[in-house]
This record gives sequence, structure tokens and C-alpha cells, in this order.
Amino acid sequence: MTTLLLSTPERAEVWGRVFAEAGERLLVDAADVRDPGEVLHLACWTPPADIARYTALKTVISVGAGVDQMPPLPEGVTLVRTLAPGIEQMVRDYVVMAALALYRDLPVYIAQSAQGKWAPMPAPDAARRRVGIMGMGRIGRLAARSLTGLGFAVAGWSRSGAPVEDVEMFAQDDLVSFLGRTDILICLLPLTGATHGVLNAELLSHLPAGAALVQAGRGAQLDMAALRAALDSGHMKAAMLDVTDPEPLPADHWAWRHPKVLVTPHVAAQTDAEEGAAHALSVVSAARAGHAIPGRVDPQRGY
Amino acid sequence: MTTLLLSTPERAEVWGRVFAEAGERLLVDAADVRDPGEVLHLACWTPPADIARYTALKTVISVGAGVDQMPPLPEGVTLVRTLAPGIEQMVRDYVVMAALALYRDLPVYIAQSAQGKWAPMPAPDAARRRVGIMGMGRIGRLAARSLTGLGFAVAGWSRSGAPVEDVEMFAQDDLVSFLGRTDILICLLPLTGATHGVLNAELLSHLPAGAALVQAGRGAQLDMAALRAALDSGHMKAAMLDVTDPEPLPADHWAWRHPKVLVTPHVAAQTDAEEGAAHALSVVSAARAGHAIPGRVDPQRGY
Repeated sequence: MTTLLLSTPERAEVWGRVFAEAGERLLVDAADVRDPGEVLHLACWTPPADIARYTALKTVISVGAGVDQMPPLPEGVTLVRTLAPGIEQMVRDYVVMAALALYRDLPVYIAQSAQGKWAPMPAPDAARRRVGIMGMGRIGRLAARSLTGLGFAVAGWSRSGAPVEDVEMFAQDDLVSFLGRTDILICLLPLTGATHGVLNAELLSHLPAGAALVQAGRGAQLDMAALRAALDSGHMKAAMLDVTDPEPLPADHWAWRHPKVLVTPHVAAQTDAEEGAAHALSVVSAARAGHAIPGRVDPQRGY
Repeated sequence: MTTLLLSTPERAEVWGRVFAEAGERLLVDAADVRDPGEVLHLACWTPPADIARYTALKTVISVGAGVDQMPPLPEGVTLVRTLAPGIEQMVRDYVVMAALALYRDLPVYIAQSAQGKWAPMPAPDAARRRVGIMGMGRIGRLAARSLTGLGFAVAGWSRSGAPVEDVEMFAQDDLVSFLGRTDILICLLPLTGATHGVLNAELLSHLPAGAALVQAGRGAQLDMAALRAALDSGHMKAAMLDVTDPEPLPADHWAWRHPKVLVTPHVAAQTDAEEGAAHALSVVSAARAGHAIPGRVDPQRGY
């Protein structure tokens, strides 16, 4: 009944304390494993090459938000994404900040500041207060609730288009209608085969003129050249990117200094070590009791 | 029964339509006034030098947010501030954006972007999520509600310290306790004799180390040199300023390019012309009916 954590020393210290308090066995160095058959749970960002030696492995738990970095796992091993309310709140904060910043033309004022230029823009058009969220999972719904509370008209786009309170929902094949009513597009999609490159030139062309993008999904979803073209043609007003392609962004990349773009270095979500450890403990207990594993990834959907 | 509007052509056009629809007489050029004794209401940012010629004047209505720019008015003339829900929502948006941006270290990421530097900071400390609002009028209460909804612990400081739901209130002489528990200080105070220069070195020194400032009050309230000293010593983390001293900020002012400061050119509140005209109409009707004037400024308090 051992859990093996392969991560940073900072995370190892927190998990060590949390597991010890719960009386659960945790190793934080593969060299300390005497009997590989004893390791039932492996927590990591990506698994080690010799994962097959852990013959009794039940789960692999991703220590970060998202599981798209994970390779296929051995037969019978369940992939688990971390469940941390703190992550959800962090992404919600980021997305609300970004939507307000784009609505209120912050990129323009930051560009003007660099030139020492005091030039108020006309007040934003209240009718343009339409936000569209791609990806209506837990974080999407949390963001929708906050943005609705601020007076934005919020629509959501998801595979099922299943109803969400106070949100105009669009199903997968209604993407064009969804985009046509969206002034601020927020991407919160997980990275899967189906969402790779989804934010391409054609998709951006369906946004109304003057639209803006908040990219808080995964870098590989956005065609950065298509974004640049849409910004430079004037079709789009601005973008705020927390994830990029490539990532990290090289120092000489155009996006750093584009006057219509704000970049943050993938900080919308950062897993809190305490929360991650608590979730891992809940996986250990659930597996022992034969209950459903919290955060189990559906292999079909990929999230 | 004439209202005289002295303002921009854009505002004059909107007011002209709104007054015409209501069957009320509006002039938008002093040269069109044949009988000055007929002008009962004057809407302007500052009154003209020859205001005394309007001998029957009842009210002067400020067309912008705030009335601190108004000189003393002739005896018997009531000063009126515009009441526009749109202004309140705009300032609320700005303040929520700014609080989130400072909490999530946006100034650091903007400064790094200028250097093409991809360097995530550690996740913000959730315990630092303490906001303090100076000025708990309508806008302050609106901002408090949104920030509470986002999970911030919100305190308010006002003359009376009168209770506000979900907000820890501090009265005037409790300023030091209020500051000591405030990581993000938001100034929404009106400019009066009592608030001139209120954000000085001593006040900033009572904030905890690493605190940040959102200045959405009036430029003359903040000692900019004291702010700079607090930022450069490391006592304060960052500031977002919508109002400055002087204003507009000269192109070579240090604040434009300080890595811990974001400046916007006094755009938190911009009066919507439709809302302003509707409010002015309500002033005209109230005066005619002998009712209380909506937005009447208390000469004692100054707001």
C-alpha cells in the first residue's frame, strides 16, 4: 500500500507531512522503492520510462491541472486528474480578470503607458458585454457564474450543450452561432485530439468584428499565426494568453510585444500542494475501499 | 423652464434627442439663450464665468462623475451630481479588475513581457486575499459585493462605519486597524477638504508589507512621491492608478514606466450620455413638482 510521488522537493515536503498525518505510506524518491510491486499509486507530471516495473499499479495521478501531457498508460492503470478547488478558483479569477481587462481596453492603456501617452478611449459599448465560454466543466461554470454576476451576457459551448443556469448553451454543432454572438471568447477546453488546433483562422473569422480572446486552455489549441493575422487586420481587438504555442514563449516571439496582446506565463492555474495531497489521499482511500476514484479520467473523452 | 447644457457635441446630440422626446426645452449653446432668466437648470462640467446672468437658476448639474471640480455656486443654487447606474457599474468593473490584477501579479508579468521573459511567480498566497475599501457609498458597496463573491475578505472604511452586509466595517478613527488588515487597498473616496492628500506616507506605512493600492478616487488624494517610496523600498508590491497627480500625467512622469505601477487615464468612470440625460430630466421634473432633487449634493459633506 505505497504511494510514490515523483515531483518537486517543495511538493514532496507537503505531501510527506499530509500523508504522515493520515498514517499513509508515501515515498518521494524511486530509489527508496524496495519492492516495486508494493506501489499502488504513482503521482507525477509524466510517468517514468520504467513504469512497467510497478506491477501492481492501480492509478497514475497527475500532479498538475490537466492530463494531456500523459502518455498511454499500461493496461489496467487508471489515469486520475487532480481535483483541487483552489485550482478552479484560480482559473476563475484569471478568466474574470482577463474578461474585464479586455472589455475595458487594458491592452490599449498598457501600450499607451509605454509611450507616456494619456489618452482615454470612449467608454466601452455596454452592448458588447457578451462573453462566450468554450468548455463548460467545473471551471467554466464557476467563471460563468461570476461573469453573469458582473452583468455579462454569458453563453457556453460544450460537447453536449447540456443546460447550465443563467447561461445560453450551444451544443457542439452550433459553434458558428455561438461565435457569432461572442465579443469576448474564453477558451477553457482540455487538450484532446478533438481540441488540438481548434482556435484556428476559420473559427476566429466567425467572431464579430472587434472581438477579443482569453486563452486559458492549452497552447496547442491556438493557431498563433491566425490570431496575429486577425489582430493585425483589425478583425479582432485584443487577446490575453496564459498558454502559448510554443510554450514557454521564446524571448524574441512577436506576442510578447504586440500592442494588442497580453501574455502571462501559464499561471492561471497552479496546483496547491496541500490540496493535491488531500486529493491523492482520497484516491488511496477510494481504491482501498473499492469506491469510484475521484478525478478518474474517462479514456474515451480524454478528460 | 429651460435647461442649458454646456458640454461636448456628442453629449449635446444625445441630450437633445432625450429632452425632445420628453417634451422638455433644452438649449446646448449659451448664444441661443434669449432670456437668461428663463434658464432654471445648467448642466456642465464647470459653470461659465457669467453664471450670475441666469438669475432664476435652481440647479447646476455636473455632467461627469464627481463634483469636486465645481467652484462655489451663487446663493440659492443647488449643486447636483449625476446619478447614473452605468457609472457605478463601470467603476465596480474597474475595481474588480484591478484587485484581481494586483492579487495575481499582473504588473510583474507585464514588466517581464517587455523583456520577453517567461517566469511564473509562485501562486499567490490565498491568505492575502484581504481587500479594504475606503469610501463605502453606492460604488463601494457594489464593489464589495462582487469582491466578496470572488472569495475576497472585504473590509470597508467610512465616516460612520455604518454596517454593510458581509463587510467588516471600520469607522473614521479606526483607520489604522483597517489598514493593518488590508492587502489590497481600494480608494473610492470623493475629493473633499478632508480627503485631500489622505493617501500619504503615514497611511501607506500602516499597510502590511507587500500590500497593493487601487486608486480610483481623485488624483489629489494620493501623494505620488510617497507611493513611489513605498514601492521602491519594497514595502508595497504594486499599484494601479486611474487618477493621478498631476492629471493628465506628463509623458515623462516616472509612474508611466515604473514596473510596479499600472496607469489608466481616468477611465474607471465615464458618464453615459443617455443616462446623464435621463437623470437631468428627473431633476427638471423634481424641481417643477417641488420634490427632493435626485443627486443633490450636501454642501457640508461635499458629496
